[in-house]
Amino acid sequence: MKVAFIGLGIMGGPMAANLVRAGHDVLGHNRSRPAVDRLVEAGGRAAGSVAEAVRDAEAIITMLPADPQVTEVAYGDDGILAHAPQGALLIDMSTVTPATSAKLAADGAERGLRVLDAPVSGGEAGAVEGVLSIMVGGEAAHLDAARPLLDALGTTVVHVGPAGAGQTVKAANQLMVAVHIEALAEAAVFLKASGADLEAALRVLGGGLAGSTVLQRKQGNVLGEQYAPGFRLDLHRKDLGIVMDAARELGLALPAGSLAAQLVASACANGDGGLDHSALLRGVQRLNGAVVSPTEREDVA
Amino acid sequence: MKVAFIGLGIMGGPMAANLVRAGHDVLGHNRSRPAVDRLVEAGGRAAGSVAEAVRDAEAIITMLPADPQVTEVAYGDDGILAHAPQGALLIDMSTVTPATSAKLAADGAERGLRVLDAPVSGGEAGAVEGVLSIMVGGEAAHLDAARPLLDALGTTVVHVGPAGAGQTVKAANQLMVAVHIEALAEAAVFLKASGADLEAALRVLGGGLAGSTVLQRKQGNVLGEQYAPGFRLDLHRKDLGIVMDAARELGLALPAGSLAAQLVASACANGDGGLDHSALLRGVQRLNGAVVSPTEREDVA
Amino acid sequence: MKVAFIGLGIMGGPMAANLVRAGHDVLGHNRSRPAVDRLVEAGGRAAGSVAEAVRDAEAIITMLPADPQVTEVAYGDDGILAHAPQGALLIDMSTVTPATSAKLAADGAERGLRVLDAPVSGGEAGAVEGVLSIMVGGEAAHLDAARPLLDALGTTVVHVGPAGAGQTVKAANQLMVAVHIEALAEAAVFLKASGADLEAALRVLGGGLAGSTVLQRKQGNVLGEQYAPGFRLDLHRKDLGIVMDAARELGLALPAGSLAAQLVASACANGDGGLDHSALLRGVQRLNGAVVSPTEREDVA
Amino acid sequence: MKVAFIGLGIMGGPMAANLVRAGHDVLGHNRSRPAVDRLVEAGGRAAGSVAEAVRDAEAIITMLPADPQVTEVAYGDDGILAHAPQGALLIDMSTVTPATSAKLAADGAERGLRVLDAPVSGGEAGAVEGVLSIMVGGEAAHLDAARPLLDALGTTVVHVGPAGAGQTVKAANQLMVAVHIEALAEAAVFLKASGADLEAALRVLGGGLAGSTVLQRKQGNVLGEQYAPGFRLDLHRKDLGIVMDAARELGLALPAGSLAAQLVASACANGDGGLDHSALLRGVQRLNGAVVSPTEREDVA
Ligand SMILES: NC(=O)C1=CN([C@@H]2O[C@H](COP(=O)(O)OP(=O)(O)OC[C@H]3O[C@@H](n4cnc5c(N)ncnc54)[C@H](OP(=O)(O)O)[C@@H]3O)[C@@H](O)[C@H]2O)C=CC1
Ligand SMILES: NC(=O)C1=CN([C@@H]2O[C@H](COP(=O)(O)OP(=O)(O)OC[C@H]3O[C@@H](n4cnc5c(N)ncnc54)[C@H](OP(=O)(O)O)[C@@H]3O)[C@@H](O)[C@H]2O)C=CC1
Ligand SMILES: NC(=O)C1=CN([C@@H]2O[C@H](COP(=O)(O)OP(=O)(O)OC[C@H]3O[C@@H](n4cnc5c(N)ncnc54)[C@H](OP(=O)(O)O)[C@@H]3O)[C@@H](O)[C@H]2O)C=CC1
Repeated sequence: MKVAFIGLGIMGGPMAANLVRAGHDVLGHNRSRPAVDRLVEAGGRAAGSVAEAVRDAEAIITMLPADPQVTEVAYGDDGILAHAPQGALLIDMSTVTPATSAKLAADGAERGLRVLDAPVSGGEAGAVEGVLSIMVGGEAAHLDAARPLLDALGTTVVHVGPAGAGQTVKAANQLMVAVHIEALAEAAVFLKASGADLEAALRVLGGGLAGSTVLQRKQGNVLGEQYAPGFRLDLHRKDLGIVMDAARELGLALPAGSLAAQLVASACANGDGGLDHSALLRGVQRLNGAVVSPTEREDVA
Repeated sequence: MKVAFIGLGIMGGPMAANLVRAGHDVLGHNRSRPAVDRLVEAGGRAAGSVAEAVRDAEAIITMLPADPQVTEVAYGDDGILAHAPQGALLIDMSTVTPATSAKLAADGAERGLRVLDAPVSGGEAGAVEGVLSIMVGGEAAHLDAARPLLDALGTTVVHVGPAGAGQTVKAANQLMVAVHIEALAEAAVFLKASGADLEAALRVLGGGLAGSTVLQRKQGNVLGEQYAPGFRLDLHRKDLGIVMDAARELGLALPAGSLAAQLVASACANGDGGLDHSALLRGVQRLNGAVVSPTEREDVA
Repeated sequence: MKVAFIGLGIMGGPMAANLVRAGHDVLGHNRSRPAVDRLVEAGGRAAGSVAEAVRDAEAIITMLPADPQVTEVAYGDDGILAHAPQGALLIDMSTVTPATSAKLAADGAERGLRVLDAPVSGGEAGAVEGVLSIMVGGEAAHLDAARPLLDALGTTVVHVGPAGAGQTVKAANQLMVAVHIEALAEAAVFLKASGADLEAALRVLGGGLAGSTVLQRKQGNVLGEQYAPGFRLDLHRKDLGIVMDAARELGLALPAGSLAAQLVASACANGDGGLDHSALLRGVQRLNGAVVSPTEREDVA
Repeated sequence: MKVAFIGLGIMGGPMAANLVRAGHDVLGHNRSRPAVDRLVEAGGRAAGSVAEAVRDAEAIITMLPADPQVTEVAYGDDGILAHAPQGALLIDMSTVTPATSAKLAADGAERGLRVLDAPVSGGEAGAVEGVLSIMVGGEAAHLDAARPLLDALGTTVVHVGPAGAGQTVKAANQLMVAVHIEALAEAAVFLKASGADLEAALRVLGGGLAGSTVLQRKQGNVLGEQYAPGFRLDLHRKDLGIVMDAARELGLALPAGSLAAQLVASACANGDGGLDHSALLRGVQRLNGAVVSPTEREDVA
């Protein structure tokens, strides 16, 4: 397929390369130039503007930081809505609010585009290895058309509902992950303060009903008090903002999610935004007057 | 081994039977008689009092409801400390406070007993099938001696620290499980209110970093809004009381654990104590004015 | 002074009338016409558009529902920035986000306007009687110029900082009030469940360090479980949205404020948005499975 | 009246002296001797044991640290129940759990004593000046008999319900005060981070619905970031333990109270237990990475 790919950062770069590898004709665009050059080296082609990238595309994928960038790239004078051809697929894989996705789907449809929201989880490693989880909102028929592309990017591609639903599921994911990390952090501080053998304890906890993917994957961070990212706390903070905004619009009370959002904000306010989100542990340590572990901050920069 | 088993309830009954099956000579005692009769049918022997049960025992196992019963059975005139022979193992597998276990270990040691705290997770099914997870606090040498017994009861037997540490890990387990259920419940309400396809959403969430054993095992309860226990909310409430008491004694602040304790209390105050703990979902529904699902309360009684 | 007054609702109507009474020449405008007619009866004059109202004004006061309306009235083609004369005072007394106020102050200054944000507390009664508390953000010299007007509207007029600071203080006010009501509600449920004499208890609590203006003024609502507004929960919900948004922009963690925001959202989700905010008590009752009092909902409509 | 006074500490010492001043014959006892000597200087008499103090008393007042001391002094071999004369008034003015008070009332009644629980608020200054607020649980007739004594100790003496109700109201008081301080602390951090004039802001907040006795009395601590007690955080921590225990026994969910309890625990874990409870502000500052103010800890010792 002829694919325009806008946003070639940490995630978008390797994703675009995977599409090349799968045999697609990928025309990439990015705000700064070096990312485009890397795509060209990987076998893609360079576009100097959004308009140029999308003009002849059968499918357009965006992988941008947040709502303002998606809005700008979609609605700007040089943007997708103004320049994409009738019938093209528009797949936004950035993490943004469900409301932004729903609006984009409606506005795109008016101009004859087939829009999907398809945020991902799995992190940089998942992007590089093409094993992302992809949660897709929008019409099922559009997803059928997009599947050849998405199957090159991830191993789990699930249709979760109408436009915006992909973002909703991603938001729910971020809520659950933050709360699970906090649960692990509180358990760890409690266990250590009680004199239990933390490593043995986490092993047995992981084998029972308290098990979680967070516990499996972040155990090392917790035991070593090492927080090289991984997924950064300040990105998680952005995503919890999406959760809480969406909840507010729906008129929902989500007490544990809201508490987690406060604790993530606190971690960032204490300078831990550049660390892996497992560094919520440092927040629980601070609450408890515990000597906070030396961070990996130098390695992070 | 000659084993005295005190407390033949939902958990203790099948555990004692598993010891018989493994070839041990089990002398059982229980407050009410029918439970003892069932043990006798299973091949065990009956004791009319705690004193009689423990008098010649090499190992004594207790599986009682909570702190007051353990204290009574251990310290009473008819109790274990007064009547157990020098050198016997005393393994308390009830869920009680770490402080109660630590005190029992010290008092037992004074009278020549080798005391372990060994609470379990895995529920009634785990007890029946002999596949419990067992977290053991106390001296490693005592655990070596007790292993033949514990291996007949569970598949994961882990030494997690000194006396009381088994209870600490069990407490951490209960904190994590409650918080994980609450996270799932809030995600479910959020997803449903957003119009996402809940079943598809939970499937994709389970495959990523938001995955948890709770999500795997309780998905059915959440989707069907059916809450036949499983593990009852009022037992979970008791256990979170242990967590918060232990945290208070240690001078710890555990905000997510404490919030979960409040929400479990609220569920019980609303009459859901007899339902499976996945019914925390009903609490989030109530917070959000959602019509609360018809419960399985009639089936529960 | 020649005053343009935009927004003649529950608060703005009586405020404009008070300005007339104090001898000012008030030209009023409102989206719907009847409110303008009432002002004319009170001795003011009618303007058919924002442009007409502000064209010759020495001072412009806005008292509008929320951010979108303030933005529209200020920035629209027919709006204040396009039509107000150089040097005019622009006093926005609506409750909006500090960011909206700060932006308006900067944009107004560019066009030669002297902008203040001056939100109020004291409710409809305070507006009618001219005894509002007014928290003013912006340059002190502008406030000096505006004092003759503000003194006709309130008894406490305090300069609290630069542009936006008035809104910040109003936001802090709404945070504190919500938390104080929740504290009172939890105390009331606790006291009643304990069998204490609630009326006597509240009397002694009010006399000590637990005293609050909320306790003084809302005692009747709590004792009678009557919730005719007063200040409506759904307005408080909007204001807590401002608080949490402002906190997020500043990167702050405010756990009690955030919890209160969730509980207010829950009350509204349960249909109590039209009741006085003291109806947070009903939320605590619901959490505790207590029979929730019959509401004044019929009187509210 | 012939009064036995047990517990002559910070509160009990000046209270006993006030009874002497009011013309009563006060026989004092205290664990350590110097406190008794001070009472003798003030015109009281010394008792070497609880038994000696109460033997001929018409009224017995206890003012002890917490539940264990009250239990020991009441139930010990040398204690009140064993040695007090039939018909004597027993007034426990310590802050303990409602359950301890209710049990003491029942056990005392069996031995012919007329028991009241009468905890106080107002602090050391209130005790010295005889202006305490006193919340009394127990039979109204017993309070009538005790009034001549209580009127010498406080200016507000209110009957709030049956045995234990005094403690319940005191617990509610401590819940409300902690939550009010937290509200003030979050507002202060928010205002400061926003660049508002904190002093002016607190002035206007105090004049409106956000006003509280905490705001009035602790404003100075907040503005000066000075925390010489006043009422110490570690005492408040003890009292919130009573609140949360009582709530648990009643099966109540009190989310704001529970959050406050966690935040007070966190403050103590960070070494602020010896500071005035207004130092909860330091906790909110820590959550937000703000430089925490130099404390008055040296003055506190
Ligand atoms: N990182 C992760 O682990 C995960 C991230 N995500 C989500 O994926 C999205 C992308 O994240 P990530 O790749 O990490 O972010 P990056 O910041 O690394 O990448 C964003 C890219 O978009 C480019 N860009 C920004 N604005 C424009 C514009 N107007 N026109 C063209 N290009 C533009 C940036 O260019 P420039 O080089 O100039 O900055 C940058 O290369 C986010 O929404 C994130 O939340 C989802 C799962 C995991
Ligand atoms: N149920 C579960 O899923 C799990 C439970 N646990 C923990 O295991 C422990 C036991 O739970 P469970 O088996 O469910 O509880 P049950 O109430 O079913 O069993 C407790 C047994 O102890 C007996 N008993 C009580 N007091 C005495 C006494 N003084 N002397 C002799 N016997 C006495 C009771 O007798 P009577 O028949 O007279 O009541 C009853 O048979 C608890 O601490 C629980 O928290 C741990 C993991 C999972
Ligand atoms: N401090 C305050 O601002 C307020 C305190 N309260 C409550 O009042 C109660 C008393 O507080 P406070 O006076 O500050 O506490 P203190 O610790 O100053 O006083 C307690 C006194 O009791 C004595 N005591 C302890 N055990 C015994 C015993 N077994 N027999 C005889 N005497 C004993 C202690 O003696 P020793 O000298 O040997 O330690 C001490 O003098 C507490 O429950 C507190 O929560 C209530 C309102 C305000």
